[in-house]
Amino acid sequence: MELPTILSEAIVEFSKLPGIGERTATRQMLHLSNWDKIDLLKFGESIKALSELKYCQDCGLFSEVEFCHICLNEERKNSGTICVVESVTDALAIERTEHYKGLLHVLGGVLNPLMGVGPEQLSVKKLIDRIRKDQISEVILAVNPSLEGDATCSYLKMYIPESVAVERIGFGIPIGGSLEYLDSMTIGKALENKRKL
Amino acid sequence: MELPTILSEAIVEFSKLPGIGERTATRQMLHLSNWDKIDLLKFGESIKALSELKYCQDCGLFSEVEFCHICLNEERKNSGTICVVESVTDALAIERTEHYKGLLHVLGGVLNPLMGVGPEQLSVKKLIDRIRKDQISEVILAVNPSLEGDATCSYLKMYIPESVAVERIGFGIPIGGSLEYLDSMTIGKALENKRKL
Repeated sequence: MELPTILSEAIVEFSKLPGIGERTATRQMLHLSNWDKIDLLKFGESIKALSELKYCQDCGLFSEVEFCHICLNEERKNSGTICVVESVTDALAIERTEHYKGLLHVLGGVLNPLMGVGPEQLSVKKLIDRIRKDQISEVILAVNPSLEGDATCSYLKMYIPESVAVERIGFGIPIGGSLEYLDSMTIGKALENKRKL
Repeated sequence: MELPTILSEAIVEFSKLPGIGERTATRQMLHLSNWDKIDLLKFGESIKALSELKYCQDCGLFSEVEFCHICLNEERKNSGTICVVESVTDALAIERTEHYKGLLHVLGGVLNPLMGVGPEQLSVKKLIDRIRKDQISEVILAVNPSLEGDATCSYLKMYIPESVAVERIGFGIPIGGSLEYLDSMTIGKALENKRKL
């Protein structure tokens, strides 16, 4: 049985989301088709409104005004520390810990020449400008561990002034993790990163 | 860090979908926030358009016109068989097999008095009317196995004319399934439903 065009169009759109296959999209859109009209209109509008989101001109986080409250926070500005992350989601994860009191900087991805992502596609120049302008003395690269992430870190290190301490976030066993189930790469890194008790 | 209102509203809407928690919704909406404006508007519109979906007056499947192509198909109409399913999704699953050549009927759920679902909330009266009108001789209850599904089947049996054969879809080991991993209820049913080779 062929699905109505309205439905198949919604399925095509929905399956563009990461991790959503055609089957899940079909199930979800069939579920949506049972919703009240008013709820569907509200949902549709909320998706459309996402195109109105604004970002901080400095760090790339969400902000209704030109600069976000983190970049405007004097205490965080004076910390002399900037933490570089790949995405807004990663920045939010750092913020959620409430452990970090320095500035943030969203790169917008990692270098991936095969996918056409070079330094121009990322917020690299802005980062170097900020390091100079805000008199940063410590850069924490909280880039995820992957081939591209590692390459990005090496690349950034080259362009960051030598007077600035450049560090990468620690790798090892996650809290609650178990050696039995972790991959050898992680365990290897954890052994490398051992610390005196 | 607080999320912008636009984003948190989209997250609230998105997490109303079945199986989507706040975390997944956040991740998906953050992903959406990177989409081009034109794609977001298209996605939003496709969700809103779902409120325009039309259903067949007889069986409850999708149909742009009053009656769907299954209900209008003379061959299927003359089969004298009607297959009762809970939802449009289940009806689509039956159609996908290409094994079934009779009529379909979407109940719209199963009896669940605790959740306020009685016979009036389901398409029960319409089913009985169709059985009479279309001179149905065989009703296949393809209702899913659950307490409520079983109760619904017993209820329907009472109201279907005695001259009509009422059957329930077969339960047993699914193809590709393994006794080792199946629950005892399924294996019990499979033993009950053994067939001569």
